Amino acid sequence: MAFAGPEIEQLIQLLSRLPGLGPRSARRAVLHLIKKKDQLMIPLSTALDRAVIAVRSCEICGNVDTQSPCAICADPRRAETGMLIVVEDVADLWALERAGIGAVRYHVLGGVLSPLDGVGPDDLSIEALLARAPQYREIVLAVNATVEGQTTAHYITDRLGPGAPKVTRLAHGVPVGGELDYLDEGTLSQALKARTQI
Amino acid sequence: MAFAGPEIEQLIQLLSRLPGLGPRSARRAVLHLIKKKDQLMIPLSTALDRAVIAVRSCEICGNVDTQSPCAICADPRRAETGMLIVVEDVADLWALERAGIGAVRYHVLGGVLSPLDGVGPDDLSIEALLARAPQYREIVLAVNATVEGQTTAHYITDRLGPGAPKVTRLAHGVPVGGELDYLDEGTLSQALKARTQI
Repeated sequence: MAFAGPEIEQLIQLLSRLPGLGPRSARRAVLHLIKKKDQLMIPLSTALDRAVIAVRSCEICGNVDTQSPCAICADPRRAETGMLIVVEDVADLWALERAGIGAVRYHVLGGVLSPLDGVGPDDLSIEALLARAPQYREIVLAVNATVEGQTTAHYITDRLGPGAPKVTRLAHGVPVGGELDYLDEGTLSQALKARTQI
Repeated sequence: MAFAGPEIEQLIQLLSRLPGLGPRSARRAVLHLIKKKDQLMIPLSTALDRAVIAVRSCEICGNVDTQSPCAICADPRRAETGMLIVVEDVADLWALERAGIGAVRYHVLGGVLSPLDGVGPDDLSIEALLARAPQYREIVLAVNATVEGQTTAHYITDRLGPGAPKVTRLAHGVPVGGELDYLDEGTLSQALKARTQI
């Protein structure tokens, strides 16, 4: 790509490192940006500059926001339900917020226990969670349904101990709109076990 | 998304307008950027700022570069073959350059004739092409093999007239690595007509 100037080349190279974009789609994106210079490239450049300055991690829950404590931790109505939802990642927090689950607070672990990858309890925000837990009535461990996620959930339950608030996890079952045919056996048997009366 | 600060929201909204990214992948991209602030977000912000200032359209061929005339038009060795390749779009020019087709020059039309979309000859860079054409030995019309592309090729051939340099088009045929089974009948019959001796 020596034919397109170092500034363009570097932009392609950086954009291709975003998830969901490869070298080919990064090139398409850059051409699109150049074509829509006034409507897209300049606003994006300004928005990135602003975000670089403004974005920070919430000192309480680990969410990303432009203020710390974040808007969720700063909202007193969020404390009323007494529910603290523990997630692996900010993406999971955003997914739950999009689902409109109501006035709850979150705690972002920043990952899951994974001895093979060298991720131990000290690499996650677990001590901060233990310190926050007594203020809440219920801790929902909304970690992913993977082996590492479940290990992390067990570890946190152990550390919280018997005197802690109620600890729950998300239900397993058939996804809404899902077809039984395509579901794995584990999910199906869990869904049958947890069946509810109509 | 009122829970993540206006700067983050705007960044997601702008990124989701890039080709290949929807709202969901734009959110993932923004989270990735925030996570890799020093390694990716700040360099990308700087690269975009630089590109906004540096990128321009080549006054001769319509390529995008950080100089005008672009590196291709400014390279005297490119003139030696006397071949001018006419493409619809800068993306096509880049695709041909990646294919390493050698020392050629290009002319970017900026689209194809499309009466239904209100695109006429005056909306394309055709007059500039006619002015450049006499300096070249061969004009290759590398427009897409669509109806609009072929119409545009016919129009340009007509306008160049009989006294012009040799006008050619790309060969139709079986793509390298392609399976006959998956090819349409038009391509197959063209490939048979243009068969070559082994």
